[in-house]
Amino acid sequence: MQSEPILHDLMQALRCLPGVGQKSAQRMAFHLLERDRQGAFRLAQSLAEAVDKIGNCLVCQTLSSTDECGLCADERRDQQLLCIVETPTDVMAIEGATSFNGLYFVLNGRLSPLDGLGPAEIGLDKLANRLALGEIKEIILATNPTVEGEATAHYISEMAKKHSVVATRIAHGVPFGGELEYIDSGTLSHAFSGRSEV
Amino acid sequence: MQSEPILHDLMQALRCLPGVGQKSAQRMAFHLLERDRQGAFRLAQSLAEAVDKIGNCLVCQTLSSTDECGLCADERRDQQLLCIVETPTDVMAIEGATSFNGLYFVLNGRLSPLDGLGPAEIGLDKLANRLALGEIKEIILATNPTVEGEATAHYISEMAKKHSVVATRIAHGVPFGGELEYIDSGTLSHAFSGRSEV
Repeated sequence: MQSEPILHDLMQALRCLPGVGQKSAQRMAFHLLERDRQGAFRLAQSLAEAVDKIGNCLVCQTLSSTDECGLCADERRDQQLLCIVETPTDVMAIEGATSFNGLYFVLNGRLSPLDGLGPAEIGLDKLANRLALGEIKEIILATNPTVEGEATAHYISEMAKKHSVVATRIAHGVPFGGELEYIDSGTLSHAFSGRSEV
Repeated sequence: MQSEPILHDLMQALRCLPGVGQKSAQRMAFHLLERDRQGAFRLAQSLAEAVDKIGNCLVCQTLSSTDECGLCADERRDQQLLCIVETPTDVMAIEGATSFNGLYFVLNGRLSPLDGLGPAEIGLDKLANRLALGEIKEIILATNPTVEGEATAHYISEMAKKHSVVATRIAHGVPFGGELEYIDSGTLSHAFSGRSEV
């Protein structure tokens, strides 16, 4: 088997997938070649097409095969509401779970000076230009509740203030179905300080 | 996102991989497009090349990009010893773990009449022809110790008898490092009935 470089290359190539190590890559390679060659062929084509055609939306920076993504181009969506998220996956999660009907802006990252990610790298200059146009009335900060996510949210809220745009942050606290006993202390103290009247 | 068919196709295509469901496929697709486009491109190429070029060795039926695989073509290997395994992965496992230096014959399955797998489907006619040539002196039955694997081993041992070839079966029993307490009863009773003098 060591003498089959094509098979070896395929196993190595499969390891670029997240969570796939040597054993999984081997299992995948053999599964595809022994039982699902058609699937493997389709996957090769889909991958090549996606790498070739999918870039970033020029307006909101999400992944898109067109200059302007479907969400940005949809005129029925509320053009005054802008939700700021870290990744395209977050857009999918929000679209799937909420009835939010505004537009998105995808940072493709978060402010993280140690990783060399400053305001320009995550497209905040583009966001500033957009806020300056005056059409956006409210931005909803939906970055992750991590240290960097919070810092990014804070930075953008300051930017919003300058352009007289309302900035709101999504609520953080005890998740539905969660039990207080098992919630981490940071979330619990946040839930207490952020309590609201019923 | 629902409006991006290329991305949707990629996620669907990734689900042909074993153990990959909707969530993993989504994570893989975004990971590749956001962080490892080069890896995705390489993977697409490797897949296409493997599907195109890798077939089965005409001699031993393992996966190979040439008519005769590297192992069958290697004249330094013992041409009188033939190890029968179910899959090409088993060849890899044996090559990696043992000092076996004979040849292999890969069934690419096991006798399983319910699945429509008879002797012809797993290449036993080809194996019979090979035994008839008289060069093989011993076959080592290394099919899995399952009901079908045992039946296949038994069938092949009868075939070997007809051609006056010695047939041996690899040992089955308590694995190294295993604890008797946790071994299933089938293995344990097999270990007792198959005990050997020290």
